[in-house]
Amino acid sequence: MLPDWITSTGRVGNRLSDPLFLCVLSNTDTCRIPKISAAGATTELNDYTPAADSEIVVHGSPQSTPELPMKPGGAPTPAVMTRAALQLTGMPYFFVNAGLRIVPNVPLIDLGAEPGRDIRYGRAVLRPDVISKSASVIGLQLGKLSDSVIIGESIPGGTTTALGVLTALGYDYGVSSSCRENPLKIKRDVVQQGIRASGITLDEVKNDPMRAVASVGDPMMPAVVGLVRGMVVSDCEIVLAGGTQMIAVFALLKHLGIDRDNISIATTKYVYQDGSIDFDSVIRDLGCRIHVVDPGFADSAIAGLRKYEAGEVKEGVGAGGAMYAAGMLGIDQKTILDQIEAVYAELMRGGQ
Amino acid sequence: MLPDWITSTGRVGNRLSDPLFLCVLSNTDTCRIPKISAAGATTELNDYTPAADSEIVVHGSPQSTPELPMKPGGAPTPAVMTRAALQLTGMPYFFVNAGLRIVPNVPLIDLGAEPGRDIRYGRAVLRPDVISKSASVIGLQLGKLSDSVIIGESIPGGTTTALGVLTALGYDYGVSSSCRENPLKIKRDVVQQGIRASGITLDEVKNDPMRAVASVGDPMMPAVVGLVRGMVVSDCEIVLAGGTQMIAVFALLKHLGIDRDNISIATTKYVYQDGSIDFDSVIRDLGCRIHVVDPGFADSAIAGLRKYEAGEVKEGVGAGGAMYAAGMLGIDQKTILDQIEAVYAELMRGGQ
Repeated sequence: MLPDWITSTGRVGNRLSDPLFLCVLSNTDTCRIPKISAAGATTELNDYTPAADSEIVVHGSPQSTPELPMKPGGAPTPAVMTRAALQLTGMPYFFVNAGLRIVPNVPLIDLGAEPGRDIRYGRAVLRPDVISKSASVIGLQLGKLSDSVIIGESIPGGTTTALGVLTALGYDYGVSSSCRENPLKIKRDVVQQGIRASGITLDEVKNDPMRAVASVGDPMMPAVVGLVRGMVVSDCEIVLAGGTQMIAVFALLKHLGIDRDNISIATTKYVYQDGSIDFDSVIRDLGCRIHVVDPGFADSAIAGLRKYEAGEVKEGVGAGGAMYAAGMLGIDQKTILDQIEAVYAELMRGGQ
Repeated sequence: MLPDWITSTGRVGNRLSDPLFLCVLSNTDTCRIPKISAAGATTELNDYTPAADSEIVVHGSPQSTPELPMKPGGAPTPAVMTRAALQLTGMPYFFVNAGLRIVPNVPLIDLGAEPGRDIRYGRAVLRPDVISKSASVIGLQLGKLSDSVIIGESIPGGTTTALGVLTALGYDYGVSSSCRENPLKIKRDVVQQGIRASGITLDEVKNDPMRAVASVGDPMMPAVVGLVRGMVVSDCEIVLAGGTQMIAVFALLKHLGIDRDNISIATTKYVYQDGSIDFDSVIRDLGCRIHVVDPGFADSAIAGLRKYEAGEVKEGVGAGGAMYAAGMLGIDQKTILDQIEAVYAELMRGGQ
């Protein structure tokens, strides 16, 4: 059932015939901490990245941003993989505004959330339960409309907030990075500062997992938790599309008692093979299935794509999940690679 | 196939087994013209009505507004019918922000539109094509997820802008009103003022129907046009839920060449029997099928509901379409009336 460019650590979802793709977009001031994120051309431009990512997926090029969300000559945003997968499959998709500073020229499902704050001060998300409740209203409706949903994210600084929540919940898996050199020491320092500032204890967080989000998380997390909470009502197959950040969401779901057999994670091989995350422990502790997708960039003629093989960018914008769905719908590796190269060329030309 | 509380002027939709309900929310400054609209307790509170309506449908009571969107002791907002129909059917639903001044405590699909302006100045909607394009992205996705969609609206002042667009397109059907005494003379004067100020001619509008919207329409119209434009790609059954305003949208669709056999209108009998609209001419000119719903308020124990029979409020928030869907799904008149009375009681208590 799995195509040869996808491997899976467990049972494969059996109802991915008619998937819906969602991508939750947020900002957090945590990304402004120097050297934390490479999800934009510069630290100052990081705030534009989720908006630009959604515009690239929908229109083929950014429209609301001064520059491409990538370093010149660097690896392109994973939005190119997402666009390619959506084009090949014709999957329906929606973008969700869960606390954006920059609103893209793309219609959005708006949860009314505010951007996240710098986690060093220990009050990162003001009312995560309100965001989660709003998202669950949407998740309930979408679960009625589709029997399988892929949920991705774009939030610069998100691996640091993921480390925050995992640490607050008592896990030490490490986290991935969009940089080749993972600034893990800086991230750990930032997280410890935030946990100290918030005053939360492990017991408190185990009792009320949303306190981890409120203290050192980001608004994407309660948005995805709420979407899932609404969708499980109709027994929907749910694929969390991402690396570290979706492991953090999965951990939250588990602690909230919303983990189900039909929730899994899909990500790129660039995250899985990175070595920054202890996937064996993730699978053992959290019991989650992980689908690992290889878009074949090693064979690409485009230098920017080959940089993924060297550890740049790795994942985001639900790219791994969108490609997993494409693979489950019968798309082969050569077809997805060709399409990604075409989308990349379109992006370099400036879109449609 | 039709239950006895629904009549239809033509073929009944044959694919209403799994409907999705949408309600497009907008504001227009046109509602601030004295004596134009009764869609709020006072002219000043009209702006709050769409937000309150959506909150009543989702939560059972308004949350962002100072008062109920109704006159004390008057007929309740049609949102009570919509909520009852959604509760009985479990239909999935979304609200769409197409130019709101007051954003409700409800997750919204946001089209990035601005509120409409006073049509007397002849520049009512700045870029209707941009709103329509954004809506068509959403319509395309929703059409993939559902084979039948009900589209309602809540926009105070909307019958005046409907008269504006119908007049600009060369039709003279009259329009309905949420007041018992329809201020049709004031509406006609306002429309003529707007058409003069805009300088548009019938030929120009026939050539480019969106000019009618830009001059004397409102942002709900291009939003619904765009949703429909996206949905017809997947051959979706579409029910426009409303009276005058959806006749204006249907006329726009016809002039834009997007009219299809599988697009019809559903409304309450309070609009249909009002006599303010020349439905015979509508059906003859536009060729649209109209489904007419009678929720049985004549037999209600609640005085506010019986006021609908006397011509108050009549329709809105997609009430007629939501009840049409309920009827097509097998709900009988007594069941819907009982549920509406329960929702009304909940609203008077202040919600859940």
